[in-house]
Amino acid sequence: MNALLPPTGLDAADLQAPVVPVAPATGLYEVIHRRRDVRSEFTGEPVDPEVLHRVLAAAHSAPSVGLSQPWDFVTITDDLTRRAFFEHVQAERKVFAAELDAPAAERFAGIKIDGVMESSLSVVVTYDATRGAPGVLGRHAIADAGLYSVCLAIENLWLACTAEGWGTGWVSFYREPFLRELLGIPEPIRPVAWLCLGPVTELQQIPDLERAGWRARVPLEAVMHSERWGLRA
Amino acid sequence: MNALLPPTGLDAADLQAPVVPVAPATGLYEVIHRRRDVRSEFTGEPVDPEVLHRVLAAAHSAPSVGLSQPWDFVTITDDLTRRAFFEHVQAERKVFAAELDAPAAERFAGIKIDGVMESSLSVVVTYDATRGAPGVLGRHAIADAGLYSVCLAIENLWLACTAEGWGTGWVSFYREPFLRELLGIPEPIRPVAWLCLGPVTELQQIPDLERAGWRARVPLEAVMHSERWGLRA
Repeated sequence: MNALLPPTGLDAADLQAPVVPVAPATGLYEVIHRRRDVRSEFTGEPVDPEVLHRVLAAAHSAPSVGLSQPWDFVTITDDLTRRAFFEHVQAERKVFAAELDAPAAERFAGIKIDGVMESSLSVVVTYDATRGAPGVLGRHAIADAGLYSVCLAIENLWLACTAEGWGTGWVSFYREPFLRELLGIPEPIRPVAWLCLGPVTELQQIPDLERAGWRARVPLEAVMHSERWGLRA
Repeated sequence: MNALLPPTGLDAADLQAPVVPVAPATGLYEVIHRRRDVRSEFTGEPVDPEVLHRVLAAAHSAPSVGLSQPWDFVTITDDLTRRAFFEHVQAERKVFAAELDAPAAERFAGIKIDGVMESSLSVVVTYDATRGAPGVLGRHAIADAGLYSVCLAIENLWLACTAEGWGTGWVSFYREPFLRELLGIPEPIRPVAWLCLGPVTELQQIPDLERAGWRARVPLEAVMHSERWGLRA
């Protein structure tokens, strides 16, 4: 690990230091709106371990219920592991395709659903419900609150990758028991995400699924309510 | 709504335009590491609707499984609604306290768990599993993937608030049926978060729960695995 990389909570100025490769965008809103779910644009270049450390430190700085930090990160470069996962994903692709009507199945046939073999690195993020338990502050009434925390960390990771000029692709065509077995993840740890990371040639301006005619984004106004459900401002 | 506020996907330069109040920090890493879960620092000043729109647009630009964007945002300023929620939270506080052993209960007694009445605005974020269904791409094997998407949006919202000089506090001492009833949220929409937002005097450098001696953060290295679960790099 690089001594220049401060742990959580240290001087933010250090975290802004220029790096190689130079980050293409670092402003929060720019990063948020530039971020894409990447499948096709990975270059396959090896990841810079210092960049990876910054990205994981960003994830690890996410909010968590009761400060439980219930996440773990498994970094995977091994070709055999990735190949095994990739093949499982392809089998699940067929399962999903079989559920679709003919027009949807035709659109789906042209959509790439993962970049497992093209990306430099995969990161599996998991949830440990036992961390900080019993008595996780804020979880007694909502059991899923711990799972929610893990997702907050994933979004931090995703945005950090974007700021670093990397892409991120969340692959969810898998069965949790398969992934648990593949990586030796013990009960009760739950896999939450398989993420593909690494340098990209570019980020698409329009999401893949929108470009493929799968689904269009809805305007913000359609999901805003004022004071009570269903009331508009 | 302000014509200067572009919808998702438009020129990022517009999103970086200076605003009133001036954002205290806009770099991604700085924002990520500055972010806190706020209870005590809300000023109670009214929120600027243009800032709120930017914050919600950031949330709405989050990744979502199958581009389903399964979230909704209910903004709440009404005093009666907030008071009713606040009282429910206090009752749930007692439920949690009763589960703790004596030393933990004593520590918990000094911890503030919400800023519902002190903050200017509350935002309830919900999950709609029917949006884009059937055939949500990427959800056939993992039903919770839609719920995960909602949490990604919440983290975007949280970071945007931080960049704008606002605080965010996630209150999870509530029962979902109570909140559904309070806001008239229909089945099968699920409440995911009650968030308190608004201007703050400052953000704490150290999380409240760590300052209160409730729990200390673990180092990143403790949650990193290489290639398989339990192997260290």
